[in-house]
Amino acid sequence: MPRPAILAAALSLAVAQLSAAATQAANVILFVGDGMDDQQVTIARDYLKGARGELLLDSMPVRGAVQILTVEDSTAGKPVYVADSANTATSLATGQVTSRGRIATSAGDDRDLVTIVELAQGAGLRTGIVTTASVTDATPASFAAHISYRLCENPGSMVDITVSGVELGGCEQDLKASGGPGSISEQLATSGLDVLLGGGAKHFEPPVEGGEQSVARLAQVEGFSVVRSRENLLAAQPGERLLGLFSASTMPVRLQGEGGRSAEAPEPSLLNRVHPYLGSVTLPEPMRCEPNPDAAGLPSLKEMTDVALQQLSHDNDRGFFLMVESASIDKQSHERKPCGSIGELEQLEEAVASAMAFAESHPDTLILVTADHSQAAQLVPQRSMFEQYTIPVYTTGKMARIITPEGSLMGVNYATNDFGYEEHTGANVPLYANTAAAGRVKPFQRQPELFGIMREYLGL
Amino acid sequence: MPRPAILAAALSLAVAQLSAAATQAANVILFVGDGMDDQQVTIARDYLKGARGELLLDSMPVRGAVQILTVEDSTAGKPVYVADSANTATSLATGQVTSRGRIATSAGDDRDLVTIVELAQGAGLRTGIVTTASVTDATPASFAAHISYRLCENPGSMVDITVSGVELGGCEQDLKASGGPGSISEQLATSGLDVLLGGGAKHFEPPVEGGEQSVARLAQVEGFSVVRSRENLLAAQPGERLLGLFSASTMPVRLQGEGGRSAEAPEPSLLNRVHPYLGSVTLPEPMRCEPNPDAAGLPSLKEMTDVALQQLSHDNDRGFFLMVESASIDKQSHERKPCGSIGELEQLEEAVASAMAFAESHPDTLILVTADHSQAAQLVPQRSMFEQYTIPVYTTGKMARIITPEGSLMGVNYATNDFGYEEHTGANVPLYANTAAAGRVKPFQRQPELFGIMREYLGL
Ligand SMILES: [Zn+2]
Ligand SMILES: [Zn+2]
Repeated sequence: MPRPAILAAALSLAVAQLSAAATQAANVILFVGDGMDDQQVTIARDYLKGARGELLLDSMPVRGAVQILTVEDSTAGKPVYVADSANTATSLATGQVTSRGRIATSAGDDRDLVTIVELAQGAGLRTGIVTTASVTDATPASFAAHISYRLCENPGSMVDITVSGVELGGCEQDLKASGGPGSISEQLATSGLDVLLGGGAKHFEPPVEGGEQSVARLAQVEGFSVVRSRENLLAAQPGERLLGLFSASTMPVRLQGEGGRSAEAPEPSLLNRVHPYLGSVTLPEPMRCEPNPDAAGLPSLKEMTDVALQQLSHDNDRGFFLMVESASIDKQSHERKPCGSIGELEQLEEAVASAMAFAESHPDTLILVTADHSQAAQLVPQRSMFEQYTIPVYTTGKMARIITPEGSLMGVNYATNDFGYEEHTGANVPLYANTAAAGRVKPFQRQPELFGIMREYLGL
Repeated sequence: MPRPAILAAALSLAVAQLSAAATQAANVILFVGDGMDDQQVTIARDYLKGARGELLLDSMPVRGAVQILTVEDSTAGKPVYVADSANTATSLATGQVTSRGRIATSAGDDRDLVTIVELAQGAGLRTGIVTTASVTDATPASFAAHISYRLCENPGSMVDITVSGVELGGCEQDLKASGGPGSISEQLATSGLDVLLGGGAKHFEPPVEGGEQSVARLAQVEGFSVVRSRENLLAAQPGERLLGLFSASTMPVRLQGEGGRSAEAPEPSLLNRVHPYLGSVTLPEPMRCEPNPDAAGLPSLKEMTDVALQQLSHDNDRGFFLMVESASIDKQSHERKPCGSIGELEQLEEAVASAMAFAESHPDTLILVTADHSQAAQLVPQRSMFEQYTIPVYTTGKMARIITPEGSLMGVNYATNDFGYEEHTGANVPLYANTAAAGRVKPFQRQPELFGIMREYLGL
């Protein structure tokens, strides 16, 4: 049993350490590679670095795996084994498990869930969000807005949301007229974020609910400088609060298949259509990846991250929270475009490199890189493993055969459904981190636990 | 610059430490979950432990990722991005990269590659192999045999190997008549292994090449006690060298779908066959997993592992190398049987638990658990994420909807081809290890590097 005097001294030391931790400037940079599962990481590694090569992610000193959690939309909802970006970003942003489509609101009873951005702002930290999606898309939105349905992105998209003639739902209870916080873009305009960069300009054009000014104008009134070009972004002044909107919706991706090609269906011969043991099959022609001309002139994810880091760290003795999303790893996989996903994983790598360099000069910086959920793309044999058998063997889905820089062919298969967009998948996702995560990140954790790790690191 | 006397003292200390390491009894237990990628691990976790649960694998203290390497079958072969179990087991067993189908032989020039079993035996360590496949199958064979083609499993299967009427190849240059080492079962019979347990009895029935006795008889002559039942296995005496053959080929798996059901093709209505926007689709009926009656009375992977550990460690001051494979995680995935793969992952967990307990009482024991390559199964939404759209959306492959013990439905999709067996996939695989691996296993490594880690741990 310790003597009272020693105990008192120990306690006073512990309190001193605690308050030192609470006032010390600590930073968290969370990277989300949307849909970046181990298949996707390997596809990108093999293409960008070669089979024996190593991504920057691979070289990060701490690695774990993350189990994704989703529930049905009721207060005691059963588990759902495949997630979307709304409920997973909510897990990361709030530490709570919710149902698909929800933005920082609870399953069933639609309560607002406090986000790490709100906690950080409450403690005087700066906050930023960077994405290649619309800034109103599910991942960024979940960190700074609360709404029952992810598609309620602007004041003109709050009721009877219809896509391709199908009515998908709405957010009537979230209307200001119902006493709610309004649409996602309106909430972002008044969010108090210091930096918000990405696409989605079209969601800031409509007039605010019950008003005449545009949401973009509201953001300016709330203190944001609105920048719309790479040049204006790179010329940002320290101290400015930035809303960057660089494209109408999702930012165009860096890479595309030759001439814009996606994965394609193998073409069986007529005889093979008669009987599966007969005839032959023509697999999709091999293709290279090439730059997407639509991305020319846009800021890269790295450039947006660099500006965000500069704005958040300038003359800041209190620290910050920054979320950076490479969104179209997922979106291009939905559309069966492997070159697109590869290029967006490369963009993530470059942005992480910037963050790692920042952490070199700012040691109290925790960097986490993870995915929100798994995706459809599979690295498959570019010709069937069973081609010695004399019958045609081929995917019933769509495949690409990509010519890699090391001169081999890489097969990528998409076959989760016959619809215009592939399904997400449910595998646990990778987690990479810098040395600040040692002892905090475990070999295995559930996705909401990452919220706790970040919160604790920031002393919130 | 250190003074000479200090330097000499330091050197002599280092040498003493080195030779201590070389003579100390160290053990390596390598577990291979064949085809056990992150999709498969998550499918098993969700079923066996629930979405919020945790496998034993998840609780292991060291975790990394492993990039699989394969090349074309020539001495300067280009990378191939999807592997099979032969070339991957060769990577693990020898540290060398080879081509698909090869058993511890080099791509192109067919040289024998020295295995960790041979190195261990050369240094006086005991060696063992345990598998749920035939002991002559690619994974076990690559640790203790050298042959150009994995299907050359017995003396009667060395030339013109024909499966379903298709001639697949042979191993004429490996015949004893050609100055080679003979078939895989013959090589195993003379391998010097202390323990070899699994299926594949049929490969020990034919007469040895150029002789009249069976391969099983050869094994006995070479000093093996041949056991063929669980009872005889569990009654093994310390000091016996054991060849256990518990089934004709692959051992029957623990779990199956209700009534033996596999994943099934969704059934579109007649109208939907006319046009994809019309009609409806009937998804496969949900099913439970149930015990496979064919597995009754067979030893479990855990029981085989327990006996192997007992035989290898009894009165042994020199250490051992043991490889334990759960083979049918892969084989059941080829056949689109998710319950089968889940049960075999459970078997792996039980065997790893035994090894972890063994390491508690034998601290110089390195336990590595990894997969050889990824597989086809994907955890998918049990109903499409896009079912709000009024058109039928469904996989063009085969899917199962499994009723999990926590009462939800889990979708598993198989859609890499239209053949009787699914393709492997190319994603990097997980690596789990005990604390003995700390500082040895990195967050990311290439598969052949695991050979180096094991070799170094054993001081070989
Ligand atoms: Zn998505
Ligand atoms: Zn296989």
